[in-house]
Amino acid sequence: MKFRTYPEFSSLYPLTLKTFMKRSVSLYPNEIGLVYRNPDTGQYSRFTWQQWYQRSCQIARVLQELGVKAGKPGQPGNRVATMAMNHNQHLELYFAVPCIGAVLHAINMRLSLDHIVYTINHAEDRILLFDDFSFPILEQIYDRIRNKIEKFIYISDKPGKPETKIEPVYEYEEVLKKQPPEFEWPYLDENTYATLCYTTGTTGTPKGVLFTHRQLYLESLNVMLRFNWNNDPAALRFDESAVPIVSVPMYHVHAWMIPYYATYTAQKIVLPGRYTEEGFCELVEKEKVTYTAMVPTMLAMLVEYKDLKKYDMSSLKSIVCGAAVLPLGLKAKIEELIPSVIAATAGYGMTEGAPAMVGGFVKKTMKDLPKSKLDEVRVRAGLPEPGLEVEVVDDNGKPVPRDNKTTGEIVVRGPWIMEQYYKSPDKTAESWRDGWFHTGDVAKVDEDGYITIADRITNVIRSGAEMIPTMLLEELTATADFVLEATYVGVPDEKWGERPMAIIKPVSGATPSEEDIIKFLEDEGIAKGKITRWMLPDYIVFTDTIPRTSVGKYDKVAIKKQMDGFLTQAKRIHKRQ
Amino acid sequence: MKFRTYPEFSSLYPLTLKTFMKRSVSLYPNEIGLVYRNPDTGQYSRFTWQQWYQRSCQIARVLQELGVKAGKPGQPGNRVATMAMNHNQHLELYFAVPCIGAVLHAINMRLSLDHIVYTINHAEDRILLFDDFSFPILEQIYDRIRNKIEKFIYISDKPGKPETKIEPVYEYEEVLKKQPPEFEWPYLDENTYATLCYTTGTTGTPKGVLFTHRQLYLESLNVMLRFNWNNDPAALRFDESAVPIVSVPMYHVHAWMIPYYATYTAQKIVLPGRYTEEGFCELVEKEKVTYTAMVPTMLAMLVEYKDLKKYDMSSLKSIVCGAAVLPLGLKAKIEELIPSVIAATAGYGMTEGAPAMVGGFVKKTMKDLPKSKLDEVRVRAGLPEPGLEVEVVDDNGKPVPRDNKTTGEIVVRGPWIMEQYYKSPDKTAESWRDGWFHTGDVAKVDEDGYITIADRITNVIRSGAEMIPTMLLEELTATADFVLEATYVGVPDEKWGERPMAIIKPVSGATPSEEDIIKFLEDEGIAKGKITRWMLPDYIVFTDTIPRTSVGKYDKVAIKKQMDGFLTQAKRIHKRQ
Repeated sequence: MKFRTYPEFSSLYPLTLKTFMKRSVSLYPNEIGLVYRNPDTGQYSRFTWQQWYQRSCQIARVLQELGVKAGKPGQPGNRVATMAMNHNQHLELYFAVPCIGAVLHAINMRLSLDHIVYTINHAEDRILLFDDFSFPILEQIYDRIRNKIEKFIYISDKPGKPETKIEPVYEYEEVLKKQPPEFEWPYLDENTYATLCYTTGTTGTPKGVLFTHRQLYLESLNVMLRFNWNNDPAALRFDESAVPIVSVPMYHVHAWMIPYYATYTAQKIVLPGRYTEEGFCELVEKEKVTYTAMVPTMLAMLVEYKDLKKYDMSSLKSIVCGAAVLPLGLKAKIEELIPSVIAATAGYGMTEGAPAMVGGFVKKTMKDLPKSKLDEVRVRAGLPEPGLEVEVVDDNGKPVPRDNKTTGEIVVRGPWIMEQYYKSPDKTAESWRDGWFHTGDVAKVDEDGYITIADRITNVIRSGAEMIPTMLLEELTATADFVLEATYVGVPDEKWGERPMAIIKPVSGATPSEEDIIKFLEDEGIAKGKITRWMLPDYIVFTDTIPRTSVGKYDKVAIKKQMDGFLTQAKRIHKRQ
Repeated sequence: MKFRTYPEFSSLYPLTLKTFMKRSVSLYPNEIGLVYRNPDTGQYSRFTWQQWYQRSCQIARVLQELGVKAGKPGQPGNRVATMAMNHNQHLELYFAVPCIGAVLHAINMRLSLDHIVYTINHAEDRILLFDDFSFPILEQIYDRIRNKIEKFIYISDKPGKPETKIEPVYEYEEVLKKQPPEFEWPYLDENTYATLCYTTGTTGTPKGVLFTHRQLYLESLNVMLRFNWNNDPAALRFDESAVPIVSVPMYHVHAWMIPYYATYTAQKIVLPGRYTEEGFCELVEKEKVTYTAMVPTMLAMLVEYKDLKKYDMSSLKSIVCGAAVLPLGLKAKIEELIPSVIAATAGYGMTEGAPAMVGGFVKKTMKDLPKSKLDEVRVRAGLPEPGLEVEVVDDNGKPVPRDNKTTGEIVVRGPWIMEQYYKSPDKTAESWRDGWFHTGDVAKVDEDGYITIADRITNVIRSGAEMIPTMLLEELTATADFVLEATYVGVPDEKWGERPMAIIKPVSGATPSEEDIIKFLEDEGIAKGKITRWMLPDYIVFTDTIPRTSVGKYDKVAIKKQMDGFLTQAKRIHKRQ
């Protein structure tokens, strides 16, 4: 008898996104898997898992016919770019592109035009799919990428093509229709590259990061387990009946993985096109959304939304906030407005972590704490994601003491951490040292292992011999009733090197004075041992808009560029001797 | 700048059991991780995760000093055998042996002595650890294995060594003490073999199956997700606060994985030595156990246990039953006795599936069903485990229609399915055909995708042109109030080939007649369309004991050996024309 084993179907069975895609359609072919609301027309489209799967098969066939080639381990397949919002077609591409062995490059549309052009050229995208929202952006950059992109595909729920100089343009819905609704997905090695994400490049050109199927599979499984292991008595049960709305743009590091793990879980996925307060509230009410992930800016917009009270938001149980730490004040405001909600941080992550590195978590030893104590835990960055090794280390690579005071750099390694910056060996070597990926973020650790982000290494204000962590000040200031947002930057100082300036956006209607700010920082910060007097700002300025990066973080680079303007309006409170 | 990437710490980060071991000790060093109750003395031992981890480090050092060598992909490390019950030392070995790169062979002590000797020789075990329970068995087989095993280690909570001819014998607790409580675990490839399990060999000699770290890691993650995705409104929340008692012996296919995934989850693990009704009830009461897994025989023992009502069992929420399908009647009885419990099947699995293949599950479309309907779903084998491909196919390898009638063979593939039978290429080739592992089990599928096991291919009664699935009859018969256990075998018949005989153990005190059985089968089986008249037994025999295999399944081979005895006592009900 001829002897044959099948390691490729057993011990080496590949960990690919196909496994996620197949579960939902196999279990729930006739259940609604996907709801899309066009934010401009208010129109709804609904798809069963079967319809979504069949459309994914069809677009996969289209891409193969257009010549898109698969890659193999170490050699990425052709890059297929999207300039697209959160709609059903984008979710189709989230699976169809990687599952034919090609690489999905979801272009971050909040980058500058120069950086968008840079990433398209750097990625060597061959096919680009765009929609009604991105069409004007694409027209502006078309002349600079036309030699690179071979074919364009236009995604719209309106029939017909737009009047444009862009060519050749195929219509997504038209080319789809011509294909049979099934597809023999190729057998892929799990180390085939699936996606290419770019960092936001606040301090230089964006850096590209490739992720394999294996990495996305393992990240999804471990992060889902952490959701379920969380002992927060108010935590959402992350089961098939949970309903997410994808608020974060799908061009932001896999929309924080919700599209991938919600598909594996067969949760009904709600897509709002782009985030608007009206769309969000209407979809929560109509689709009985139970959870979402947001950046704090979106949450601040929601808190200020005048029509919020007109909607029945009672299905919504959980809002996790990422990209920046959730201020306790903002948390309290949203929970007052939507009493069914518990808001917590989503943890801490970055493009290089795909993005999950540290996850929000209540330990089992804490679950009987009173709400105020639990809330403090809920706004911490959290604990290392299961499956990862995360340490906070000093300059010699030694873990800092767990005293919640000593700061060090966060280093990380594990199954879904970036292997290298695409085509940037030097930048890779700067980040990967001694077997650890160096995040460039500064943090401290408490005795329970909770990691609190102190700052970006580059954002720390260096004043005398001290490092003033700006995030600490920002979070504290934002807990004031009269403050909506607050950031701190260093102002050059002859004697001390730098001194802090506070840039504050009050809540609408409030008119705090500089003295109110200082008094608040003294009472809530210094008196309670959270900050030292040395950290009090020397300058305070009130403003209507604080510059943010495309991912919703305070844009310190832009702020520093406008430094003269801010300084002109600022009031000098103090001059340190 | 010298360029270096770290794929081994990122995209290729190894999936090993070390990740599971490290999470619990890192998060909860000072929480109780482990409780062991000696079933003979009633004495308790408690260990924090830190203590357990330090002891695991110490035994790892001992094994290395005794010369145990690590393996590499494709080449198993030295085999370390245990003949041990469910105690803390066994859980230490569950991690310490695989995490030094060696292979844990947990010897199934319910095998015949011949088969135990066979597996030790076949596995080429070098070190054997035994305890007070297995000591007499070991003495009996010592002369047949003494040339194979180099060193013995005696596990006991009593000080001193037993009087024995076995040598050399080390004392576990003594050798442990001499080692420092930390250890630098080696860096292992994820495809390093971790465990070696043997099938029970009901139809021949036991077959060995090696599993890698990667396989156990991926099985654990996917199965845990299935627990949490389950929409059963009464399902246990599988979080850190759940407390398992490991009722299934740890020499049964990884004790159905509970030790591995409970450690990753940092659940408090309760170990009863061996299963006794008293130990089970006392531990549930004292340790506030929330869930367990059992074979139906254990559950039947519990139902009959006279002191059950003396204990506070109210913490217990979930009993899952495996190895054989849970009869609805038995389910109803335990739920009446312990009202906090929901009993359900654990699904379907086998040694070759490590063991999980099909998992008990309530779909989200079913969660509002009335309890009686939910109960029917709860006793089905269930749905394919997430991550696996499972099909029921006809003789041509085509999936059978989802009509809940047509039967076919279950075939399966996926990341944790056995790659090959150890040193048995011919048996491997019989099972792995055309890219699928053939289980030898017959099943049918309903329109929702639920798989119901009909029988082992070898247990089907072949009567005329019909195949009579015995499990269907067994389950139906066991729902009768007066029946505790029931099995069916084929009796040779000149005209029809085989005809069914029912072997029935009544509940204690009940004295049903053969006519009661037939009437029950007519009313509940034929009248309700569950069986045909052709399946009614021609012979019925009542007995006190039905032979079971070491894993708790009805032992058809042993029954057939005693066929003459059963036939003598049996009453012939009918003679088919």
